[in-house]
Amino acid sequence: MIISSRLSISGTITQPNSTPNPKIEDPKPDPKSPKLKPSPQLNRWSRARSIRSGRKLERPVSTLEKKTVQREEIDDEMDGCDVTDEGGKSIYMVSDGTGWTAEHTVTAALGQFDYCLVDRGCPVSTHLFSGIDDVERLMEIIKQAAREGAMVVYTLAESSMAESARQACKIWEVPCTDILSPITEAVANHLGVSPSGLPRGAPGRNSALSEDYFKRIEAIEFTIKQDDGALPQNLHKADIVLTGVSRTGKTPLSIYLAQKGYKVANVPLVMGIKAPKALFEIDPEKVFGLTINPVVLQTIRWARAKTLGFHGEAKTSYSEMDHIRKELEYASTLFAQNPVWPVIEVTGKAIEETAAVILRLYQDRKNRCSMPRISKRY
Amino acid sequence: MIISSRLSISGTITQPNSTPNPKIEDPKPDPKSPKLKPSPQLNRWSRARSIRSGRKLERPVSTLEKKTVQREEIDDEMDGCDVTDEGGKSIYMVSDGTGWTAEHTVTAALGQFDYCLVDRGCPVSTHLFSGIDDVERLMEIIKQAAREGAMVVYTLAESSMAESARQACKIWEVPCTDILSPITEAVANHLGVSPSGLPRGAPGRNSALSEDYFKRIEAIEFTIKQDDGALPQNLHKADIVLTGVSRTGKTPLSIYLAQKGYKVANVPLVMGIKAPKALFEIDPEKVFGLTINPVVLQTIRWARAKTLGFHGEAKTSYSEMDHIRKELEYASTLFAQNPVWPVIEVTGKAIEETAAVILRLYQDRKNRCSMPRISKRY
Repeated sequence: MIISSRLSISGTITQPNSTPNPKIEDPKPDPKSPKLKPSPQLNRWSRARSIRSGRKLERPVSTLEKKTVQREEIDDEMDGCDVTDEGGKSIYMVSDGTGWTAEHTVTAALGQFDYCLVDRGCPVSTHLFSGIDDVERLMEIIKQAAREGAMVVYTLAESSMAESARQACKIWEVPCTDILSPITEAVANHLGVSPSGLPRGAPGRNSALSEDYFKRIEAIEFTIKQDDGALPQNLHKADIVLTGVSRTGKTPLSIYLAQKGYKVANVPLVMGIKAPKALFEIDPEKVFGLTINPVVLQTIRWARAKTLGFHGEAKTSYSEMDHIRKELEYASTLFAQNPVWPVIEVTGKAIEETAAVILRLYQDRKNRCSMPRISKRY
Repeated sequence: MIISSRLSISGTITQPNSTPNPKIEDPKPDPKSPKLKPSPQLNRWSRARSIRSGRKLERPVSTLEKKTVQREEIDDEMDGCDVTDEGGKSIYMVSDGTGWTAEHTVTAALGQFDYCLVDRGCPVSTHLFSGIDDVERLMEIIKQAAREGAMVVYTLAESSMAESARQACKIWEVPCTDILSPITEAVANHLGVSPSGLPRGAPGRNSALSEDYFKRIEAIEFTIKQDDGALPQNLHKADIVLTGVSRTGKTPLSIYLAQKGYKVANVPLVMGIKAPKALFEIDPEKVFGLTINPVVLQTIRWARAKTLGFHGEAKTSYSEMDHIRKELEYASTLFAQNPVWPVIEVTGKAIEETAAVILRLYQDRKNRCSMPRISKRY
């Protein structure tokens, strides 16, 4: 079972000198590795390979054949992946890299259907296939999409792979969208140079150990250490300082901003406890106040109290409306005393949305452009 | 100066009862607010507004006019945003929401030009304009792009806005790409329902306080608390446990996975210190070993030692090649004793790439599909 799961991921399985563990280094499976026993999954792969042996592109099933594919046959091939058992529509996301771009874009597009996704009026399943860098597996996935009546969204750096996907989708009548080619081609025209055609993580691509990579790691480490008011003496080292009462989302927001390379500190405001002196001594243009609707805050605190196992007494002070109103008022007074701090209303906002507001302000204060923007140089 | 920076962000500036701070609630500026003094930036906005007064779409400048726009004029409009001073090409990213989808996609596309970006053979600047939800500001940005010779990439939920962008880019001869429309239309056809046309964060959109939102917050909190081997008694509550020697990127990787909703714990392996017993008692299918090339690790540790202010003695044990090799050997022996743990080589991989490998394995172990995939239900 263990070997089976190892083999089924698309990573090279090598046998290092000192350890029997698989080292996952590049995305091609190596079925020749002598120490690995065959498994049902390996058998399935081998069977599939032998059927397709020697041919890059299998002859597509005709529309008629496709329509008569039996449910049982699909179930057999799906191997327990009962992706369609709730009758929703499937979206296949195929990538030669991590697949996060495809996932991100599909999630954004699905946001346009929130109104029927929430009440399951239009149920959807997404399936991400990452590291797909040979045409054989690509065809396998598109064929499966045809069987399941799924649509395919792909990001494939190599133009011949993208073209194969487009053609196969056309032949098998699978609705499909190429996410990266239009923008990549536009950028190529704009810059006057050709795209490399190499997927993310390919050996020819530049190392991830860039300046940007180290900056992000450093920002994350700083942000974790500063979380929840720890080490106020380091507040001045932060790019951005968030402050607000408990459960205004300071921590997840800090982490999100850190991922983007900003060092973030957060200072909780608790009624009856003095905010650290350092908060008022640092550059006030770095500080952002967070506020929230009291009713929503109460809901969040109830959930929190439940998680922490609070009951009765403890709940009273933390999630009682009277206490919440007083605490928000206390925060509001503090914000009033520091008029440079922008106060951001987080009610109903996703972390990404609050982050967008903060970074727009932050960058604008730094650059003072006529139209607020976040600029980067490559 | 402070008021200027407040006004220039695209947020409503209201005056709450108890505080003079601006509350940023929706993305339309309210120039009527009586308490705010005029600023150079406000003046510029008003001037621009009065020029355009009453007209939704300004008459496009002719190609001739466009080409004769003086450098000084652009500089005046740019207001100190010297985006073109290194002679690179600009990419404008325009969004009615956070703009992260546009940013993510452009970054992925730029990955195809790594080979000339690194040595500045094809220098590029990106400029993100988020929360652009009226046609007037949209036109302003596209006009500016035309002046600067920039290309425009946009994600606009409302179809009339997307169409305006398309037309304006055509008239002003600005190369442009619509990122979301193709995939949104494809999804609409697939689901048989229409997109809402509402940008992210619009009042009609569903609240961000969804199950997914709480799950992510909880995962982030758990992951931060568990960081660096803290609370080994809670290891069994994690979805994923990462282990490896210092500087194999456990923390940033944990945080990245937590953002995706997985509870992650990480356990550092230090030579001479026994790994916590709990690591060997939990479900071994949750544990992932990280390993790295010793030379690369030494470079990273040197940088780390410098940051921490280590010199001489301290540096010896932490970043000396002999010590590094022994420590990696120790980790390797431990991995060998736990053959179920996959060992992932992180050398030269971006956080996202390692995360993709781990999640592919994790999901595959859970679902045992014939083709490894990460599935989600909406």
